[in-house]
Amino acid sequence: MKKFVNDPKRFVPEMLQGIALANPDTLRYVPDYNLIMRADAPRDDKVSIVQGSGSGHEPAHVMVVGKGMLDAACPGDVFSAPPMDYVLETSKLLNTPKGVLHLINNYTGDRMAFDMGRELAEAEGVTIRTVVVDDDVAVKDSTYTVGRRGVAGNFFVIKAVGAASEQGADLDELVRIGDKVNSVTRTMGMALTSCTPPAKGSPLFELGEDEMEMGVGIHGEPGRRREKLADANAIVDELLEAVVTDLPYERGDNVALMINGLGGTPISELYILYGRAHQQLADRGITVGRNYVGEYCTSLDMAGVSLTLVKLDDELVSLFAAPAEIAIRTF
Amino acid sequence: MKKFVNDPKRFVPEMLQGIALANPDTLRYVPDYNLIMRADAPRDDKVSIVQGSGSGHEPAHVMVVGKGMLDAACPGDVFSAPPMDYVLETSKLLNTPKGVLHLINNYTGDRMAFDMGRELAEAEGVTIRTVVVDDDVAVKDSTYTVGRRGVAGNFFVIKAVGAASEQGADLDELVRIGDKVNSVTRTMGMALTSCTPPAKGSPLFELGEDEMEMGVGIHGEPGRRREKLADANAIVDELLEAVVTDLPYERGDNVALMINGLGGTPISELYILYGRAHQQLADRGITVGRNYVGEYCTSLDMAGVSLTLVKLDDELVSLFAAPAEIAIRTF
Repeated sequence: MKKFVNDPKRFVPEMLQGIALANPDTLRYVPDYNLIMRADAPRDDKVSIVQGSGSGHEPAHVMVVGKGMLDAACPGDVFSAPPMDYVLETSKLLNTPKGVLHLINNYTGDRMAFDMGRELAEAEGVTIRTVVVDDDVAVKDSTYTVGRRGVAGNFFVIKAVGAASEQGADLDELVRIGDKVNSVTRTMGMALTSCTPPAKGSPLFELGEDEMEMGVGIHGEPGRRREKLADANAIVDELLEAVVTDLPYERGDNVALMINGLGGTPISELYILYGRAHQQLADRGITVGRNYVGEYCTSLDMAGVSLTLVKLDDELVSLFAAPAEIAIRTF
Repeated sequence: MKKFVNDPKRFVPEMLQGIALANPDTLRYVPDYNLIMRADAPRDDKVSIVQGSGSGHEPAHVMVVGKGMLDAACPGDVFSAPPMDYVLETSKLLNTPKGVLHLINNYTGDRMAFDMGRELAEAEGVTIRTVVVDDDVAVKDSTYTVGRRGVAGNFFVIKAVGAASEQGADLDELVRIGDKVNSVTRTMGMALTSCTPPAKGSPLFELGEDEMEMGVGIHGEPGRRREKLADANAIVDELLEAVVTDLPYERGDNVALMINGLGGTPISELYILYGRAHQQLADRGITVGRNYVGEYCTSLDMAGVSLTLVKLDDELVSLFAAPAEIAIRTF
């Protein structure tokens, strides 16, 4: 797979530099820590929301820094957790009297970096709380994870705590909201193709022309099983069955439905998948109250998709409807 | 290349059905004519803006129907012009006392369908004017075109006439604005990979692992030449040189810069390209007053990019800054 790249070692810094050049009024870039932060952060009247994780999942998370979303993101290299000093320095820079909230997708490397970075920052007087996201129903334990993985459902945690923090919520309240969103959010993904990390220059794993990987992770980790390639409807139905039965989501529920492209899938195909998922949920008596179709949490150039459901209540409907101003796309 | 597809013949209708299900309050879908229109159109106080073209370029054009953008889009099948009766029926449905504006990318098939559809609609009393977009500097005449091709620069024509039509501009004024935007807009694209039409099921053309196609068309038409694969900076520099020298854009100019992904390129890579283009323009004394990074006009799952410049003046700055509410993406 061919890519737009200069020096693979400079892939992440060059991307971050591009983001900064495109958003000079709203974002600030601190190259030493791969840090993208809101130009108006930290604000004394607001908890700062910070996410780390590896790169390669864009727009997550450096491109969702903005009003109503993240205050900062400090990614590591492609598919690598940020070093703990990134977490430390970011936490110190984003410190406010109301404290800092760390959002972490559940991978062992990310948790370790954030645990150590948090302890160091706390020793310097920063008040920090943590919300861990683990929405992926595909597998229990995985290549890089103890417990379930955190994937695209992470978007909904960011959106909810981002909105609540703009409304003045304190750290305890944000932890309550973040944990609540995670508890009602479930995702499963699948891949048609592998992905190619810039530093490797070749596909991370091999998938035959007639194969697909159900339950794939966003770093190409193995899923539930490799299957014979199926049509769009059969793929949606399998993802939906796995997700719906896990919480479970039940007749009468109102949900948010996300069809998330993994980086190499055209949006035309995502809407074909959306249509089927919407109709299958209707057949189960489940209403799609909000929908999200596009790329939210990707795996480089992987052709594939993930399907996320969030069970809505009045509080989440209100938080998800709050305004968000992110860095990417201007119409 | 594997795709999410059921029956390839149903690719476009299933996509349109998905779009309609995802936007029940704002869009109306008329299956007989592949028609996606604003739920509040036609409005007596506004010219209706209509675009046709083939499918496979999403989000163009069915996903940019909404306030401040298109009033309707009536696409043909993948890479096929809409039949003239789609144009006729869409024009009649969208008719208002202020008339209908047709936006056409310059391909022979599209122009023929719109010419005939317009004549039939005019015979039934609909007032129609036309703006043709031909922003692609890569080649003069091409596989499906006499003259230059219309590609991603089309977005800026839509944005400007969409904004002006919301402000009450009449048909003559919209033609003036559309022609003006087209006259100061230039684009060139290139491909790292081919694309796979659903009905064909295999790549439209072959590109070697060490090759790229400079000046490619959005239907995979040949460009200027096939070259040895280069790094990201060299690709940007070649596209920029071709685009800048064509109008030409000159020291002191204020421009909009669009880095448009062709469907299979991750947004991380697009920002690497953006950063280089922004800096190279600065070196030429050209200021990027507005920027657009993402997917606007794609070629199915093609990995590739196009670069567009628009020379700005006060009128265009104001029109591009006007609000637009499109169907795709909700944050």
